Amino acid sequence: MLELFLELGNLKRLPRTGWLLRGVPNPESVAEHGYRVALITMFLADELKSKGVEIDVEKALKIALLHDVGEARITDIPLPAQKYFDKVGGEIRALEDMLKVTGRGEEYLSLFREYEEELSLEGKLVKFADRFEMLIQAFEYERAGVRDLGEFWGTIGKLRESELYKYFQELVEGLVERRTIFKK
Amino acid sequence: MLELFLELGNLKRLPRTGWLLRGVPNPESVAEHGYRVALITMFLADELKSKGVEIDVEKALKIALLHDVGEARITDIPLPAQKYFDKVGGEIRALEDMLKVTGRGEEYLSLFREYEEELSLEGKLVKFADRFEMLIQAFEYERAGVRDLGEFWGTIGKLRESELYKYFQELVEGLVERRTIFKK
Amino acid sequence: MLELFLELGNLKRLPRTGWLLRGVPNPESVAEHGYRVALITMFLADELKSKGVEIDVEKALKIALLHDVGEARITDIPLPAQKYFDKVGGEIRALEDMLKVTGRGEEYLSLFREYEEELSLEGKLVKFADRFEMLIQAFEYERAGVRDLGEFWGTIGKLRESELYKYFQELVEGLVERRTIFKK
Amino acid sequence: MLELFLELGNLKRLPRTGWLLRGVPNPESVAEHGYRVALITMFLADELKSKGVEIDVEKALKIALLHDVGEARITDIPLPAQKYFDKVGGEIRALEDMLKVTGRGEEYLSLFREYEEELSLEGKLVKFADRFEMLIQAFEYERAGVRDLGEFWGTIGKLRESELYKYFQELVEGLVERRTIFKK
Amino acid sequence: MLELFLELGNLKRLPRTGWLLRGVPNPESVAEHGYRVALITMFLADELKSKGVEIDVEKALKIALLHDVGEARITDIPLPAQKYFDKVGGEIRALEDMLKVTGRGEEYLSLFREYEEELSLEGKLVKFADRFEMLIQAFEYERAGVRDLGEFWGTIGKLRESELYKYFQELVEGLVERRTIFKK
Amino acid sequence: MLELFLELGNLKRLPRTGWLLRGVPNPESVAEHGYRVALITMFLADELKSKGVEIDVEKALKIALLHDVGEARITDIPLPAQKYFDKVGGEIRALEDMLKVTGRGEEYLSLFREYEEELSLEGKLVKFADRFEMLIQAFEYERAGVRDLGEFWGTIGKLRESELYKYFQELVEGLVERRTIFKK
Repeated sequence: MLELFLELGNLKRLPRTGWLLRGVPNPESVAEHGYRVALITMFLADELKSKGVEIDVEKALKIALLHDVGEARITDIPLPAQKYFDKVGGEIRALEDMLKVTGRGEEYLSLFREYEEELSLEGKLVKFADRFEMLIQAFEYERAGVRDLGEFWGTIGKLRESELYKYFQELVEGLVERRTIFKK
Repeated sequence: MLELFLELGNLKRLPRTGWLLRGVPNPESVAEHGYRVALITMFLADELKSKGVEIDVEKALKIALLHDVGEARITDIPLPAQKYFDKVGGEIRALEDMLKVTGRGEEYLSLFREYEEELSLEGKLVKFADRFEMLIQAFEYERAGVRDLGEFWGTIGKLRESELYKYFQELVEGLVERRTIFKK
Repeated sequence: MLELFLELGNLKRLPRTGWLLRGVPNPESVAEHGYRVALITMFLADELKSKGVEIDVEKALKIALLHDVGEARITDIPLPAQKYFDKVGGEIRALEDMLKVTGRGEEYLSLFREYEEELSLEGKLVKFADRFEMLIQAFEYERAGVRDLGEFWGTIGKLRESELYKYFQELVEGLVERRTIFKK
Repeated sequence: MLELFLELGNLKRLPRTGWLLRGVPNPESVAEHGYRVALITMFLADELKSKGVEIDVEKALKIALLHDVGEARITDIPLPAQKYFDKVGGEIRALEDMLKVTGRGEEYLSLFREYEEELSLEGKLVKFADRFEMLIQAFEYERAGVRDLGEFWGTIGKLRESELYKYFQELVEGLVERRTIFKK
Repeated sequence: MLELFLELGNLKRLPRTGWLLRGVPNPESVAEHGYRVALITMFLADELKSKGVEIDVEKALKIALLHDVGEARITDIPLPAQKYFDKVGGEIRALEDMLKVTGRGEEYLSLFREYEEELSLEGKLVKFADRFEMLIQAFEYERAGVRDLGEFWGTIGKLRESELYKYFQELVEGLVERRTIFKK
Repeated sequence: MLELFLELGNLKRLPRTGWLLRGVPNPESVAEHGYRVALITMFLADELKSKGVEIDVEKALKIALLHDVGEARITDIPLPAQKYFDKVGGEIRALEDMLKVTGRGEEYLSLFREYEEELSLEGKLVKFADRFEMLIQAFEYERAGVRDLGEFWGTIGKLRESELYKYFQELVEGLVERRTIFKK
């Protein structure tokens, strides 16, 4: 398993290419993104529970932690490149190879699929947290001066269409509102 | 809760000062460390379960995610500075203020204490993962050329004294062995 | 004294956390700040002399050079963290420990107190230079594109209340004026 | 063509992932690599001419400049990831799309193929320069302190097998010799 | 020639000081600039040929690759410093020393002079590409949030006065137009 | 004087090219160097006084602060480039232009000459501190893993020849001794 832990170190070194290609100086790493996604997932899952929604928090946290692990091997292939490669297919095969050593590869892969295809409430929650985290980061970059991140905000539509939106509307719209002053 | 999520962003910006003060160029952030700690916690907790140990994986993951969250407000105060400040005391008060908005502040704080004082198996596991992650990172820096990280390896003793060592001896000693070629 | 000189090297490695937490990419180090504070102190002290004010330039320069030296050990603890720690108290004890080896620890500490509590003209001048330097840096970051530094400019009020303001009004207001075009 | 020139800017922002994943701090960009490859190609092509070898220098320079251009769209997919993706296939399709606007897409693509498949003397020369540049860079990183780059030096075998080796043996072996003092 | 190739590595490490002094975080290196200049030169030279203009593409590419090579030794001395030093004179003497080992020093130096004094169509084309590349980079920095680059855009006048402008008017004015939305 | 203070900001942005060209990642800025030189000057000057040597501490501190100020305009032109330019001549003319606005330009320039030509005890002390600071920094880089800095240590000879050596022998040789373990 040591080899796996070492390979996970790549996630600290790999920049999120969406920001990188937009010229953000020293953009966050995949690990930094993954960390806040997991924290947001935790707070939102607990919030859902408080609101009476049945959710498997352990499962949600595992999905959150695993959702970008494959990038340790395939890197964060940016959107324009995905026209030329089947990113998800490659990611799944890479994950499979990476996680074999844990003896629970199949279990973890199945969690990844719940995320990728939004098959369960937990998978949907992580997708929601993943997108929301990206927008919070976009907001933070804009607040710090970065321009031309408008296209990232298209994702707001996907948050609004999510079945989880009704629980977290205040959060989502609160971010949109705070952004107003920086938008141009 | 948006304010909290934004403050968590500090963890991406804050360097781990132990490496910084040793001259490591562009050292990892607190978030990057926290991410791998949480992943290692997940893999080790599942491994313990496979070995028949009773462990609350959800709790362990929450502790792992929370264990450095207070640093978003107080920063990663390095060891030599802790002679002049009660780091843990300040961290707990900061965490309390930060997490109030979640409505589960007390619950989260109590998880933090399980980690800080190693009160439960889950708290001990995260302490183990926290230390092991630091050594893996030390190994990676040494492998990349950084010197003079010898003092960090004193922590290996704490891993060996841990009651979890018996389950993960192979992992710990595997790292020590791999390091041999870079030690001087 | 070699140990002290080596510890001073930390000031090159430590980022100024006020900027860091605001998302400024690669913000200045404490040493970089301290260097311009010392230069500004020199130019302003000489200017005061030219204007007939009695001032001990040597003392002013020593205070300027010393005013952030304690951060080599305690780091630049940011404002929000100071709610949880007695920063100045810790800084003084750290300075005391650090400077013992010079045989003039008491003398230097007393200079630091003149700065911290603005006990002398020289202490006040360095406080003035320290704040002015921060605003010049804020201006430079804004000029380079950074946004959301508005709260730093609250410090302008402290410059205007200073008894030194009457000598350097043109400088201070000149900066405010130059900033106008970047303010939003 | 402006869009193409802007997309080429990605090559300045994209790190060479081989170094990145090995922990090299702030590794070179694809553009930085490409620039020295082109310069080395120029000097070696002129040298070949001086030695009486017939070579089309213009063609060699074009191949050198074009050989990594596709990475502006697909990024520098590292070796371990190429198990999961057909990198060259994707790169060719991306290049095709990118260069259409020049009106000479077919011509440029055919040059790229001469490089990729080493179909011509010029293609072979750029392959040689590409590999040699990588080793010079590895040497420079090692000289600056980076360790664990041993696996990159396997490439030396490919240089020695090249039909161009006989002309540049002194260069290649000169590098190997200079490296001796840093090897471990 | 190995020494020369190693010295060329400096171009990767040297920042373009025009941006650096304006506060651009992590500005491009001289090599990154040189690489896109060479690519633009290639595309524009081929375009000229398509338009029936007689041009020696090989020569143009060599000039493009060589035009900043002297900076590997003298660094990118910024404009305000050139009041105190004869930059071009020093650059030529440095180039002469650097290129002696190639056996074609005179030939390469003469190419450099064609660029510096715009003595030939090829020299003029590289001058055009050099300036255009700088403006594209300025645009990219502005798009990413950098402010206060207005003075760089004075160069647009030189592009418009160039005898090559008539061929590339659409490109130049296309950039100006795209910039409009970021200008202030 | 505001213009001067802004131009001093360049010293934070300009890397020390000696380290940069050797491949040190993210090397210190001129300001960072200047800050520790000034602090070392202060401690050594006070030490000299304690030992009964007559020294003008104010003058020494001013020289220390001013000794690299000219680089804000001319940049840190590295040693190999100085073959092609009269660095000191240019630096003096730049300083003259920069400092005119203070009304004490002549006075400051004369202090700079005391340093450059080691005309006074204070000038010699700053030269000593300047060289010693560079060696401490070299030691710190070596301790952190950087290799191939051997040539910088030639400067140790100049420290030993200095008339100040007899007072600070322990410091100098203490550094040499500490370095032993990293030397190769």
